[in-house]
Amino acid sequence: MSKPLVFEKPLGMRDILPDSLAKQRHLELKLRHCIEKWGYEEILTPSLEYFDTVGAASATLADRMFKLLDKQGQTVVLRPDMTAPIARVVSSLYKDVPLPIRLFYQANIFRAQEKEAGRNAEFFQTGVELIGDASVDADAEMIALAIFCLQSVNVPSFRIAIGHVDFADGLLEEIVPDERAQAKLRQFLSDRDFVGYRHLTDSLELDGRSRHRLHALLQLRGGKEKIAEARELTVNGKARKAVETIALLWEALEAYGLTDYVLLDFQLTSHLNYYTGVIFEGYAADLGSPLVSGGRYDQLLAQFGRPAPATGFGIKVDRLMQVTAVDVPTSSKTLLIYGAANRQEALMRAQQMRSAGAIVVTRLLEHRGELAVWQEQADWTIIDLTEEREG
Amino acid sequence: MSKPLVFEKPLGMRDILPDSLAKQRHLELKLRHCIEKWGYEEILTPSLEYFDTVGAASATLADRMFKLLDKQGQTVVLRPDMTAPIARVVSSLYKDVPLPIRLFYQANIFRAQEKEAGRNAEFFQTGVELIGDASVDADAEMIALAIFCLQSVNVPSFRIAIGHVDFADGLLEEIVPDERAQAKLRQFLSDRDFVGYRHLTDSLELDGRSRHRLHALLQLRGGKEKIAEARELTVNGKARKAVETIALLWEALEAYGLTDYVLLDFQLTSHLNYYTGVIFEGYAADLGSPLVSGGRYDQLLAQFGRPAPATGFGIKVDRLMQVTAVDVPTSSKTLLIYGAANRQEALMRAQQMRSAGAIVVTRLLEHRGELAVWQEQADWTIIDLTEEREG
Repeated sequence: MSKPLVFEKPLGMRDILPDSLAKQRHLELKLRHCIEKWGYEEILTPSLEYFDTVGAASATLADRMFKLLDKQGQTVVLRPDMTAPIARVVSSLYKDVPLPIRLFYQANIFRAQEKEAGRNAEFFQTGVELIGDASVDADAEMIALAIFCLQSVNVPSFRIAIGHVDFADGLLEEIVPDERAQAKLRQFLSDRDFVGYRHLTDSLELDGRSRHRLHALLQLRGGKEKIAEARELTVNGKARKAVETIALLWEALEAYGLTDYVLLDFQLTSHLNYYTGVIFEGYAADLGSPLVSGGRYDQLLAQFGRPAPATGFGIKVDRLMQVTAVDVPTSSKTLLIYGAANRQEALMRAQQMRSAGAIVVTRLLEHRGELAVWQEQADWTIIDLTEEREG
Repeated sequence: MSKPLVFEKPLGMRDILPDSLAKQRHLELKLRHCIEKWGYEEILTPSLEYFDTVGAASATLADRMFKLLDKQGQTVVLRPDMTAPIARVVSSLYKDVPLPIRLFYQANIFRAQEKEAGRNAEFFQTGVELIGDASVDADAEMIALAIFCLQSVNVPSFRIAIGHVDFADGLLEEIVPDERAQAKLRQFLSDRDFVGYRHLTDSLELDGRSRHRLHALLQLRGGKEKIAEARELTVNGKARKAVETIALLWEALEAYGLTDYVLLDFQLTSHLNYYTGVIFEGYAADLGSPLVSGGRYDQLLAQFGRPAPATGFGIKVDRLMQVTAVDVPTSSKTLLIYGAANRQEALMRAQQMRSAGAIVVTRLLEHRGELAVWQEQADWTIIDLTEEREG
């Protein structure tokens, strides 16, 4: 094991340089302004949490977490998400605050990376949690707010795919007796491996109607008409209940006037059994990975001793950076060069210009050669007070 | 070792709740706007760095760092400061960017806490680094910018104490032959233990003039007149050179018109031999610990392979929170209650109000009892559309 070079960073870690960071801060500010208007208040939890409390309740696999031992010998993790820490707060510091509670966050979260992956191990997320409201209107509020957020940062073309964790699950349970086959089909759906899904359904011993229903699931992505098609595939039980929830959700989104941004996707399945109801993902036209993911998680709060329904979503700010072209507002930039004789004049003038909104750097010019470097930077105006004095 | 309770956080870690966080974000935004106008650009480095690169170069003691092993078996630390990571960037990604380079940051940094301490293990800092400028004018720019920063967030009454690492060091070297005694006296100064300092100087075998000079050091805090007093104590060598640097710095601060905010303190000593020249600390009237600390560190960049003079400072945002009373701007808050019949009307009206700048929560009223909870919150206006419809 060799010593790292003096320039190296741990795997998956990166520096964010000024141009990129200015854009990120600008996007985050726009998202903040959008979210605040919906009555959400910002909260920040520690970077480190006990594994046994927050780590174990997280939707992230334990082996993807950064773990360390604290000085008392307890296992501590770098927060893998903000949802579990917020559930901890709602159940402790906020235990006397009546529900519903609306909170948001803008924070960095962590995922340990394998050598091969080349993905970010620390990334930025803006998200909201609405705790204590089980209604379909709460699900609709999440989706509407996600849409307004993406609009606020000019994502050029996006759709929110909406599903329900119980639909595919329920349908597979109704039709496929073998639990291992159910699990495999579920995994194919989750991986969007439709070839594998078809291959396996074809190999199962099923009657024609059942096979047809399993195949029909692959068609259940689209507009409002998919609700009726989904109803045809299931008569009762949890899959049918899921369809009726989606139908009510569609009506609520119609009331918002937002159904143009929505795509129904009955193939969506839950990640790690974390979600319990309506789930959704936001996609931009040019990006395969979701910008937004969210959904209902009605079981999490009970793990912290305050059972309550909840829903929320997170926006991946790093991905947002790739798809939105925003103009970050800038100010004029001036370099003010002075000599020993006119320093006071220069410093006062700089401060006046700053008060008027300008960016000003002052510089005692000892080496005139340095001027050439500044002159190469097109966005800087150079005022040379030493020459003004001479002239 | 017992399992932590479900509500517990690791030692020194804390949740920042909305009222407090809103104030922190507001302060950080004001500091950002102030700093940007001086031509500094924001940078963000990873939360985790290799111990062998950034950890070892930090001004923080290794046993105060949070350490973990990454999956490749290297020791990684949670960043104990931002200065060393920025030195890494200036020497690598920025290696072709000409000096001077002006960068700032707003970031959380980490210090592992002992059981007894009860201090924050994660705290927030806003700071600047000016790399590649050895002039006294650069030192003055740091102090001026620190003053403007504290003014921008209405710190009611503050002073910047300014010293030079070579003054007390040089004086002790001139007068006290025993290096162990030098080190002890230095430690007494650093701890501001003047009783211990006097006691030790009285016990040393010294001539009257030497003892007088050591005692006189304890008087060297005050205004411009302390420069002449300091000159009297040392004829040549590094202590005298330090006095002359402070004299030039005072002139530069006079040019800024800022000497009213400044206190000269020739007793200041360097922390961990990290600083190499002018050092300073900012104090608010009501707070014993410094709000700001900074100074020149001309040796650090060489450790990353790009030798360059540098100076900078950090503002402790958590301490700032304690001393500044700022009014965080807020918007009007409205709860809009609707029934199933007038949902669309409610959602549209809410969105119009938000576009006009208001904070609006919409709520399907299934349980009228909940209204009482909202009515208790004085800052919320309640519009009950279900009654408007009825009325």
